[in-house]
Amino acid sequence: MGTVVALAGQIGGAKLADGFYRIRGEHLAVIVNTGDDYELLGLSISPDVDTMLYTLAGIADPRRGWEPVEETFSFYDMLKRLGGPDRSPIGDRGMAMQLMRAEALRSERRPTDITRDFCHALNITARVLPMSNDAVRTQILTEAGAVSYEEYFSDLQCEPVVKGFFYAGADQAQLSEEIVNALYAPDLEAIVICPSNPYHTIRPILEVQGMRELLRSRGVPIIAVTPIVGGSALKGSAAKMMRELGHEVSARSVALEYYKLIDGFVIDVEDQADTDGIRASGFDVIAAPTFMRTIDDRIALARTVLDFAEAIRKRKLAEADT
Amino acid sequence: MGTVVALAGQIGGAKLADGFYRIRGEHLAVIVNTGDDYELLGLSISPDVDTMLYTLAGIADPRRGWEPVEETFSFYDMLKRLGGPDRSPIGDRGMAMQLMRAEALRSERRPTDITRDFCHALNITARVLPMSNDAVRTQILTEAGAVSYEEYFSDLQCEPVVKGFFYAGADQAQLSEEIVNALYAPDLEAIVICPSNPYHTIRPILEVQGMRELLRSRGVPIIAVTPIVGGSALKGSAAKMMRELGHEVSARSVALEYYKLIDGFVIDVEDQADTDGIRASGFDVIAAPTFMRTIDDRIALARTVLDFAEAIRKRKLAEADT
Repeated sequence: MGTVVALAGQIGGAKLADGFYRIRGEHLAVIVNTGDDYELLGLSISPDVDTMLYTLAGIADPRRGWEPVEETFSFYDMLKRLGGPDRSPIGDRGMAMQLMRAEALRSERRPTDITRDFCHALNITARVLPMSNDAVRTQILTEAGAVSYEEYFSDLQCEPVVKGFFYAGADQAQLSEEIVNALYAPDLEAIVICPSNPYHTIRPILEVQGMRELLRSRGVPIIAVTPIVGGSALKGSAAKMMRELGHEVSARSVALEYYKLIDGFVIDVEDQADTDGIRASGFDVIAAPTFMRTIDDRIALARTVLDFAEAIRKRKLAEADT
Repeated sequence: MGTVVALAGQIGGAKLADGFYRIRGEHLAVIVNTGDDYELLGLSISPDVDTMLYTLAGIADPRRGWEPVEETFSFYDMLKRLGGPDRSPIGDRGMAMQLMRAEALRSERRPTDITRDFCHALNITARVLPMSNDAVRTQILTEAGAVSYEEYFSDLQCEPVVKGFFYAGADQAQLSEEIVNALYAPDLEAIVICPSNPYHTIRPILEVQGMRELLRSRGVPIIAVTPIVGGSALKGSAAKMMRELGHEVSARSVALEYYKLIDGFVIDVEDQADTDGIRASGFDVIAAPTFMRTIDDRIALARTVLDFAEAIRKRKLAEADT
């Protein structure tokens, strides 16, 4: 039973990471997108890291997975009454992480250390690793200008047509020692790209200096799981972005985002008919149930992904022997 | 109907200020202690200003007057779970003011302007004026060292013996233009020192450079209301401090703190027997009900104080004529 490294963000990513966590425990390291982080009222909000922590700690709300269960909004109600900014509501429980993070950052602590402390406090034994200790800020290039995901989602209601993306700071961002260590685990078994938005969740991770090269250099199977099923996004705005960028809205378009990076691609059973087409594009492909409604669904998908990785590893070994 | 200027802090001070507000409306200016302000996790907490704002806005909790009604503590519960500081609980609603204030201070806005914005948002027509835009930090000198009121109250549970006070920064703190304007109101009728702790609530206000001189120079009656009744504090730790400082625990000791500043002193009816003794110390004295259980009690005490001021003003005029 080896170490799994997952790349993730958003709720879908957190759910699959949780599946790995439940079968691998401390033998899981999750590299989490921080490109959608933003500052508000002196708070440092790291949506994907927060979602991951709530999910792995088992305290995420079952329906609104980006916030703790039974979240309340007394703070935000009073903030609006006082004329504060009208943005994504900040919950009372959620505030704790954002305030502690902001204060720690002002004391020049590294995001990796801050997140590790949160893991300890929440009894999470997996490693949750921000993709870099350096700031990367994903800009969504839209007809309304370059905006953050928070602005795009909250202020602009995902309305402007998306023309492209810019990962500000990525060319300066360094890999953390902890990420390098996780990927150099002697028992590294698989690298998994979770079902997250390929443009503003996974791509920023891959843009960190040296990340792609390090992932490829390890020689273990790299598997991606589609966030797109039947031409519509499981969650979020991925399908809309795909359409506006001029891509076919399909799992295959997601696979092509990871061309020359991944060894295998998991599509949903609903899209089983596309298996051969995607395989023809140069990927090893399996179809599996990718909707994760229950904890058991998360575990089942995690097992499927690891079995797929093992099959690819064995095939590669066999090919090397011949 | 002229302008009233009140000096205040804590719950007792806020209640009497509310009495004036309900009969004078916008013709009230309250100068509020900021010597007990403190910073925590990047928040700027100004307990006396917050209490005053909640009280005048009519949203203070009836029993826990320093916080908004029906306050919740989801933030603080999560903060403790994450290993945050174990201090005075910060409520979810209360957080809004503290976070907005901190952010505004980082943007170099003046406390006076920040507080005015809160007043507008909360439909408070009276002027709530922080005692200075410069930081004053009251140090309670105890057997356990020099501590802030927050440390004394929250961390040390008011236990260490109090030896004295130091008002750090007071000798550099300037009067704001708004305070000068309020005291130069052509219709200024009375200056009232509310029933607040004389050592760490009223004294810091008086220590701001030029404050005492300005108050005396206006020629209107200055009236103080006792926070001490029957040898025990109505609220807070005033009686304990008084004892440890070697003073008699009595309304008279409070009056002596304001020697050469005030013209009249209001004691509680319970201490009526002390009227002559305090008068003999050089003060004009009346006894009145000073417990403010209801809104009507606040209004009644406010009227009593203003009638007392008017009587003193007339007597002074008569003396000047003879």
